[in-house]
Amino acid sequence: MKLSFKQKILAKITPTEKEALAQKTLARQLAEKILKHVHAKAMLVGSAARDTGLRGDNDIDLFLLFPRKLSEKQIVSRTIKAVNTAIPVKWVMHYAEHPYLKATIEGFEVEVIPCFESKPHQGIKSAVDRSPLHMTYLQDRLTQNQREDVRLLKQLLKTNELYGAELATQGFSGLVCEYLILNYRSLEELIEAAAKWNPPVYINFTNEKINQFKDSFVLIDAIDESRNAGAVVSETQLYRFISLCQKLVEKPAESFFEKKTIKKTTKKRKTIPLTISFAAPDLVEDILIPQLRKTERGLRKHLEHDYKIIGTESVLNGKTAEIFLELENEFPPVVKKIIGPPANNSKAVKEFLKGKKPFRGPFIEGSRVIIEENTKQESIVSFLKKTLSKPSSFGCASHYEKTIRKARITKNNKSNSAVKFYNKRDYWL
Amino acid sequence: MKLSFKQKILAKITPTEKEALAQKTLARQLAEKILKHVHAKAMLVGSAARDTGLRGDNDIDLFLLFPRKLSEKQIVSRTIKAVNTAIPVKWVMHYAEHPYLKATIEGFEVEVIPCFESKPHQGIKSAVDRSPLHMTYLQDRLTQNQREDVRLLKQLLKTNELYGAELATQGFSGLVCEYLILNYRSLEELIEAAAKWNPPVYINFTNEKINQFKDSFVLIDAIDESRNAGAVVSETQLYRFISLCQKLVEKPAESFFEKKTIKKTTKKRKTIPLTISFAAPDLVEDILIPQLRKTERGLRKHLEHDYKIIGTESVLNGKTAEIFLELENEFPPVVKKIIGPPANNSKAVKEFLKGKKPFRGPFIEGSRVIIEENTKQESIVSFLKKTLSKPSSFGCASHYEKTIRKARITKNNKSNSAVKFYNKRDYWL
Repeated sequence: MKLSFKQKILAKITPTEKEALAQKTLARQLAEKILKHVHAKAMLVGSAARDTGLRGDNDIDLFLLFPRKLSEKQIVSRTIKAVNTAIPVKWVMHYAEHPYLKATIEGFEVEVIPCFESKPHQGIKSAVDRSPLHMTYLQDRLTQNQREDVRLLKQLLKTNELYGAELATQGFSGLVCEYLILNYRSLEELIEAAAKWNPPVYINFTNEKINQFKDSFVLIDAIDESRNAGAVVSETQLYRFISLCQKLVEKPAESFFEKKTIKKTTKKRKTIPLTISFAAPDLVEDILIPQLRKTERGLRKHLEHDYKIIGTESVLNGKTAEIFLELENEFPPVVKKIIGPPANNSKAVKEFLKGKKPFRGPFIEGSRVIIEENTKQESIVSFLKKTLSKPSSFGCASHYEKTIRKARITKNNKSNSAVKFYNKRDYWL
Repeated sequence: MKLSFKQKILAKITPTEKEALAQKTLARQLAEKILKHVHAKAMLVGSAARDTGLRGDNDIDLFLLFPRKLSEKQIVSRTIKAVNTAIPVKWVMHYAEHPYLKATIEGFEVEVIPCFESKPHQGIKSAVDRSPLHMTYLQDRLTQNQREDVRLLKQLLKTNELYGAELATQGFSGLVCEYLILNYRSLEELIEAAAKWNPPVYINFTNEKINQFKDSFVLIDAIDESRNAGAVVSETQLYRFISLCQKLVEKPAESFFEKKTIKKTTKKRKTIPLTISFAAPDLVEDILIPQLRKTERGLRKHLEHDYKIIGTESVLNGKTAEIFLELENEFPPVVKKIIGPPANNSKAVKEFLKGKKPFRGPFIEGSRVIIEENTKQESIVSFLKKTLSKPSSFGCASHYEKTIRKARITKNNKSNSAVKFYNKRDYWL
């Protein structure tokens, strides 16, 4: 297989020379200033530093490496002091596994992250300690052609909603992309191999070893063999990638690297479509989107106790968040079968039946006591209104708790979320 | 625990002296006549012979035991010849594992069954060879009190729809009842033990052995240790028996031995109730009822492809058979999710999607390709009419194939089958 159009796509996705130079220059200047005020090593880490980032990726990740004998508290306080003294801008404290600093400088998103200096397979003190090791490992090994292939792979994945390790995507992280290209040597070879994957997939390019992981996608981290760098890739995303690669092998087309636009058709399914719209607070999408997905999941699970949900979808549409629900019926099923405890556990059976006035039963089926109850026939809209007024009851994410109380519920199958729902389709199939 | 009312119930269920004497006298006379015409041993087998039958049980089971060196063909032909010569009535040939003869004589159902003479654990030539061994084993061991307890146990089980090994009941056979009383020594001790059963139950009263059976109820046959005499007992029936015994221990009441009549109330559940009525051919209930259950199961399975069935019930009501169905809705769910092959099996995926025009999808979920289709919105009554006109399509039992074509379908929740359905309840819970 040959992807003859690689250069054409690279021309669109590679950062401009000006952009790359400005990014590296700024990073170096910042590092020099900070090191005057703290005794540590500095390292520029991440895709920009390795020349594997996409155009418009304006992250500068600066790591400060401290000796392992120090405490976390010490390295954090030394970093804060040095950074604020050296670069007097508005730094914001963020918390991942431990605190780090963030600021926007000359249009770039700058992060300064303290960590402990480690050697490969030595064992880490903090999760972030791996990043400098990854940097060194990959910087030493990736060829110029492979760096281009990493960019192309990222573009392919991004286009097909496979890129990113966050919960909303559960796809392939930037690091996984680099490891995959390194392991299979080129994008073409990776695609050909992946087209033949039959999960569970096991990749270990450092040394052979028995697979101790139960994930469907295992990629042993080259700098920490006790870690599966691909753990976050979900089964769905793994199969979507395999299936996509099969089509690419069959017909290597440029279009796989280009973002698809959803056809704006709305389908009539004789179901109950509901769109819930509410205001999104003034925060970045990186926070708003995962929180919206979490809210969608929580709401779905809560409603499924009573109603028959066919599916859900959510979109962030500028200042408006939307959750779409498709239901089988406006009302819950009239009869609910409740499965009780094993019939020979007389104490549990007594407890289960206490106060219950079953509509049919109790009777024994298999090992269990069963009763059937008639459900309260409340319309989904009425039930939803009550539910949304108590956001904590269904696990609404914190940033939406306030606005979802004032959500607008419409029987709408033309909203953005509805269109996305009805058009859900892996186009290559 | 003491069942003080045992004598009172025994007075109702023990065959009258006249009945028992007539039965045994007839059996002996028949045996003597037959043996004049064939070289074999004769044995009266079954509950009547062992004094463990219930009043009104008018079966005479006469076994002819032949040497093992003969063939099945030989023993069957010799039996037929001798029986027809000795007792010139209208004998009907029946087939179980091999042929046997049946006739009604002086109000008794007489069966003459040829078999091979065997010793315990010797290995049998035909399934029926076990019956004489069971007869000898149990006749030698059951005390007079235990025979009474077997009758009481049978009555208890019959009353609570737990008696009988046929597919419609999947309960405890007469043989299992005798084994249970023998093993636990008395009805009271059996009930106390069963109240504490925690399945899988394993009973082996001949010698200790590792359980090679996977059934939830294992009762090693005393005359053939490679056989689970309780294999037919379903999980549901086992748990119903345990639960019933617990209540008997708690409150030993006569009422558990008396047939319950169903309250004739009909419940409004806002569901779709349908009664299908059709003529029952002129055959005994032993044939009609299992065939009706088979038809009920086949129909339910067939309809469940499209419609949401809450439950079904069937009754034989004199000359009329009824199947009752309760449905969630008159129409099938509007959207049907179809789960296709693993997404990395491109050949199977292509085959699956060929000619399909999914309403939503295809998309990948987990390892599978999924499509959603809109179902044909045909009412259950219209669909049922078409279905019943082709009885072979849903596995209708042979004897109903003719009459079910002319079945009457009514939206009826007051039919006998509907009343039975709505009143399904293990009353002791």
